[in-house]
Amino acid sequence: MIETEFALRPIGILRSDLTTREAAPKQGSEGGVDAWLEIHPSFAEGLEGIAAGSDIILVTWFHKASRNRLKVHPRGDKRRPITGVFSTRSPDRPNPLALHRVTIREISGNRFRVGPIEAIDGTPVVDIKPVLPGSADS
Amino acid sequence: MIETEFALRPIGILRSDLTTREAAPKQGSEGGVDAWLEIHPSFAEGLEGIAAGSDIILVTWFHKASRNRLKVHPRGDKRRPITGVFSTRSPDRPNPLALHRVTIREISGNRFRVGPIEAIDGTPVVDIKPVLPGSADS
Repeated sequence: MIETEFALRPIGILRSDLTTREAAPKQGSEGGVDAWLEIHPSFAEGLEGIAAGSDIILVTWFHKASRNRLKVHPRGDKRRPITGVFSTRSPDRPNPLALHRVTIREISGNRFRVGPIEAIDGTPVVDIKPVLPGSADS
Repeated sequence: MIETEFALRPIGILRSDLTTREAAPKQGSEGGVDAWLEIHPSFAEGLEGIAAGSDIILVTWFHKASRNRLKVHPRGDKRRPITGVFSTRSPDRPNPLALHRVTIREISGNRFRVGPIEAIDGTPVVDIKPVLPGSADS
């Protein structure tokens, strides 16, 4: 069952003033900043219907993460007991996908100003989903 | 920026009585069922700290989806105007990742009974995240 791999293709990239993992807060709600989301022109058609002022869920790929960690200290805090990576939001995990609920501040063509977000400059974006009232993750 | 691809490696698979897309509800909250999540033994160590009774966010890969759709009718309803796929939760999208907030009913080794979930039998699971109070997607 793990023989198959799937090719994840970035649809865009995040342009942020946060440039290192050390500078980034643990969560968007803990000091995240506003950043530009640049969607590649070949995917721009898929953006129709997204409006400034609304909240979306960005799915990103933490390209700087380590993929072979199964145990971590929560929040990187060595005073906290080591635990399974799937019971944490550690960026280091087998598939370093991250979920960010952000507000769209401004739309300029295929560039969206969004925030607050803790992901660093150059983070690949792999999906955008609407926040659905009453849905599982809203 | 879209030259790079990332290899997504399933960590487990969903075993469900729902076997076709036609039989599956649109959202877990709309008639999803309980199903078994089987984590591959090589990732079992990462499960430490996950407890029965808690809610988690499963990230799955809709392996039956079409990846070249940028416009869809919301909920597959042709009476609704066609719109950009990123403003919908359509399973057909460039990277067919899906988010499911589910409750863990029971844990048996590296098998978790979870629900309610609308994903079909055989759906690859690529990540598990805790629901954090006050986090972006909780």
